[in-house]
This record gives sequence, C-alpha cells and structure tokens, in this order.
Amino acid sequence: MILRYGQLAAMVEEAIANSPFTGNPERLYRPMNYMMELGGKRVRPVLALMGCQLSGAEASAAMPQALAMEVFHNFTLVHDDIMDQAPLRRGQETVYRKWDMPTAILSGDNLLIKSYELLAQCEPARIPALLKMFSETATGICEGQQMDMDFESRADVRLEEYLEMIRLKTAVLLGCSLYCGMLAGGGEHSRAMKLYDAGVQLGVAFQILDDVIDTFGNPEKTGKQAGGDILSDKKTCLRIMAMNSGDAGVHDLLLRWNGSGERRKVEEVTAAFISMGIREKAEALANDYFSKGEEILNSMDFAAEMLAPLNELIAFLRVRDY
Amino acid sequence: MILRYGQLAAMVEEAIANSPFTGNPERLYRPMNYMMELGGKRVRPVLALMGCQLSGAEASAAMPQALAMEVFHNFTLVHDDIMDQAPLRRGQETVYRKWDMPTAILSGDNLLIKSYELLAQCEPARIPALLKMFSETATGICEGQQMDMDFESRADVRLEEYLEMIRLKTAVLLGCSLYCGMLAGGGEHSRAMKLYDAGVQLGVAFQILDDVIDTFGNPEKTGKQAGGDILSDKKTCLRIMAMNSGDAGVHDLLLRWNGSGERRKVEEVTAAFISMGIREKAEALANDYFSKGEEILNSMDFAAEMLAPLNELIAFLRVRDY
Repeated sequence: MILRYGQLAAMVEEAIANSPFTGNPERLYRPMNYMMELGGKRVRPVLALMGCQLSGAEASAAMPQALAMEVFHNFTLVHDDIMDQAPLRRGQETVYRKWDMPTAILSGDNLLIKSYELLAQCEPARIPALLKMFSETATGICEGQQMDMDFESRADVRLEEYLEMIRLKTAVLLGCSLYCGMLAGGGEHSRAMKLYDAGVQLGVAFQILDDVIDTFGNPEKTGKQAGGDILSDKKTCLRIMAMNSGDAGVHDLLLRWNGSGERRKVEEVTAAFISMGIREKAEALANDYFSKGEEILNSMDFAAEMLAPLNELIAFLRVRDY
Repeated sequence: MILRYGQLAAMVEEAIANSPFTGNPERLYRPMNYMMELGGKRVRPVLALMGCQLSGAEASAAMPQALAMEVFHNFTLVHDDIMDQAPLRRGQETVYRKWDMPTAILSGDNLLIKSYELLAQCEPARIPALLKMFSETATGICEGQQMDMDFESRADVRLEEYLEMIRLKTAVLLGCSLYCGMLAGGGEHSRAMKLYDAGVQLGVAFQILDDVIDTFGNPEKTGKQAGGDILSDKKTCLRIMAMNSGDAGVHDLLLRWNGSGERRKVEEVTAAFISMGIREKAEALANDYFSKGEEILNSMDFAAEMLAPLNELIAFLRVRDY
C-alpha cells in the first residue's frame, strides 16, 4: 500500500518517540533526544520513506535510513546553532544554551556517529553504496556551511555561488534521503541517482522560496515577523540579485544600511526589492528548479499513484501560503 | 615481508604527506591538513598496519583504514581542544585559536566524515563489520570524553570509573585500529576481536603510565615540566588512588590545594603520593594491563617473527624512559 505524506510523517514521529537514544553518561544522551524531540517537518526522513516506496518495497523497510537522515540533520542543527550563536531553535533553547558549548559539540558529534550506525542497518550488500552517498553528502554539507560563513564577510557574492552554497548546505541532503530510501528498499543505483538529482533540484527551489518568504511572507500566515534576513544583512538570493543588478542606487542603499538594526531598514530594502521586481525573479527561479525536479521524476515512468505522495509533498513545498 | 614499527610509521607519514585533503572552501580544508601534519607518534595507524600484517596480508593493504584511525583521532583532538580551551597542541596553536571556533567545529566534523570515507575504502564485503566496530568505538570515545568532563566537578570519582573512562576515551581506539587492520587484510572477525581485546588492555596500561609520567617524569627526558595534572587538579589515576586510600590527611591536603596554581602545591602533593606508595601502585596497575594484553596476544599462536613489530611497540610504550 502506498502511504501518503501525513501517514509517513506520523510513522517517523512514532519511530523517533519509540526509540530514544540510550547510553551513558546521561549528559551526553539527553541533549541528543532533546533535539530529536523538538519536532520539525521531518521532510528528510519522509523523503527517504518515499524513495523506499518508489523502489517497490514497503516504506517501513527504510526506517533506519530515514532516521539516519533526521539524526544527521539534527547533528548539523546542533553545531550550526553554536556557530551562529542562535539562542532559539523551534521556539526552544538551543543545546549549547540549555547545556553548554562542550556538551553541544560532543552530543552533536555523537548524533553524527549515530546517523552512520542507523544508515548501516540494512542488508549488508547495500551498505557500501549507502555509505558512499552519505559521506559525500555529509562532506558537501560541511562545505556549504563553510561557504555560507565565508559569505558573511563578502559583499561580492555571485548568484551562481549562492546557488552552489544552498545546493550543498540544504539540497544534497534531500537528494541523499530519496537515494538512500530507494537503495535500502532494494532499488537500483542508477534509478536512485535520478531520484537524487530530482531531490537536489527541489531542495534548491525550496531554499530560494524560503528567502522569498522571509522577506515577503505574511506574519499571520508564517508565524514570524518579515524581514529577519534583511535585518541581519544575510546574503540571500534576493539581496544577491539586487546587489548584482547593476543598479547603483540599490547597491548603495544596501551597503548604507549594513549593520543597522532599525525597522526602517526592512521597509526601505523591501521597497527597493519590490521596485526592482526581485520577488518575481526569485519566484521564477524557484519555479524553474521545481520544474526541473518534476521533469526528472516524470522521466522515470512511475505509475501516477506511485508518485502521488511525492507530488503531494512537492505541492506543499511549492505552493506555500505566504 | 614483516615490517617493523619504524618502517610502518614512515609509511604512514609518507601517505599523509602524499594525500592531503583537497576541496573547497579552503578555510574548511586547511585546518584539516594543518592538524594531520602536526605530527605525533602515529600509534593508531601503525597498529592498524600491524593488525593487517598479522592477518597475513601486506601492511599496505590496510593503509586507508590506518589513515581513517589517524584522521578520526585528529577529529577528536580538534574538538577536545575547543572543549578544554587548550591553546597549544604539539607546540603549535590549536585550530580554534589559529582560526576560530566555528572553523574548528566544522573542520573537525569534516575530519570525522572523512574518517568514515577512508574506512570504507576496501573490499565491499568487509565494510559492514568495519563500520560496526568503528561506530561503536567512536560513540564510546564520545562517552569517555563526556565522563572525563563530568569528573571535573566531582570529588568522589572511583578508580573503577576512572578505568572505564580511559578505556572509552583512549583504549578502544587502539583496539579498533588493530581490529580494522586485521579485517581489512582479510582476517577473521573472531581473531580480530582478540586483537581488539589486547589493544584495549594495552591502551589502558598506556594511559595509566601517562598519568605516572606527568607527575614523576624527568623534565629532561619528557620535555615538559612535571606536575601539570596536579596543578590543574586533574582526576588522574594517582589522585583517585590517593583520594580513595582512606588516608584523611591526604584527602584534605588535595582538597585544600584545589584551584591553586602555586608551585608548592606540586611539591606537597607529589611528596604525599610518594609517601603513600602511589607511584608504585600505579606502575603495578599499568603492568597488570600490559601483561593481560600480552597474554591475549600470546594465546593467538602467532609465529614469533609475526608478533615482533607489535612487541617492539609494546616495549616502547611500556618501558618509557621517564
């Protein structure tokens, strides 16, 4: 039976609730479970289960790999929160704030190790390919995070570099999730690689749209004030498009506001983006990536009902109400 | 041909020099190579090559696994140095001091990922067992580091807990190195497990002796001033033996000096250890572990020339001139 997004997400939640990490000392393991239980959309493990269904197997056959993706994702969050000095994550204190920095480093390390352990819980013959994809993805994510940090001190980031950064930092893990799910289900490497490629396109699209929503989202719908990225001078897709547009006025406007925390900055910069049509350009770019992802999926000749859960997820990510 | 310690160590140095990590951004990869090139005794990779020789294969057959052990070890050093706020490592600036904390966290993470990549460079059928041992070891090392940090705020650490801490923090990786080397060479799991057990015993012995040397070593021979552990109130084997001896005078002496950085503290505490015969007790304990390790090795019925390189290394570790 082909399960839909909601059912798969519920399976993931149940698996997380039923299999907390256990071990000693407690101070190492409690932060790991704290992170896993903070919630989130569970997009990555759901993608892994979807990849598994697309191989023809039951979704549950890839549950260890699905959890590996979520555990890995949480490892990156614990360490990123230290690097970004973020006080909150999903409305709760971040690990390094709730405990301390050494505890956050070490419990993050152990999450990374546990993700490898989970990944390897499958038929031995499938382990080498899973491992290769996973390690390449993991290294790519480190590279993407370093690029993102390097961008902070640069005013000349090109759109191409930005797209490469979000491909590495965010998109490859979505592709990897689909790949590992299909492989764990017994699927072929070459077909799983197509899923990977589709996942990467969708991931880039998703991240571009995230930038749009941060600036143009309706607070009543998104649940957070618009303009956070503008306030922190983040090198988003919107800002990079504006900086590289050749419009000297906007270029100077952005540099003049650098470092300011005034609310008027958000208003002026948002107005500049609107007058330049940056919102539409970014949405069009996201749509291009969504379409490329869908094209790859459609080229794989799945029966429509097989693809339905993934299409449902894509529609949810694509037509986010903002 | 059976290679000796010096030859194996030279092979490791050459392999490290000839295969630096490459990738972008440079700020992620430079600290990784910086750490790998800081030197050290290369005990772990040499043990892996020795394990490989003991399987009957050429030592070089396990070079990727040997490097995996050294890369993993360096990952732990980069992160431990942040947690311990250590300014120097092998006489050079630590990564988080030379660059910054985010860079140290991230390049450490990437070293951990790369160690998994190296580990998997062997015949696919051997990967699952290697992976299982490696992940269990890696998680144990996190647990040992957390125990070590937890000990800092406790005055009642028992010798048994201390021995478990050093088993996890230090010894299991020596056992894992021998195991992975033998397995990569085509050896059997059950024999490799005996090597693992021997390596763990030797590792515990090695660490106990390290504590003895820190307090009783001759600075002219060890190259560092004696008493560093005493000055920092470190919960060493010596201190724990003294605290748990039932001698109220020594117990109070140690607590009274807590937090002090005076040189007289080293003199008084060292004198107390000597009067209690703590040095001899610790050396005897280390010898017990060395002997247990050697017993396991001797029970494996290797030809004497096969075991010669490992015996040479044990002799070097055991009869350190201090």
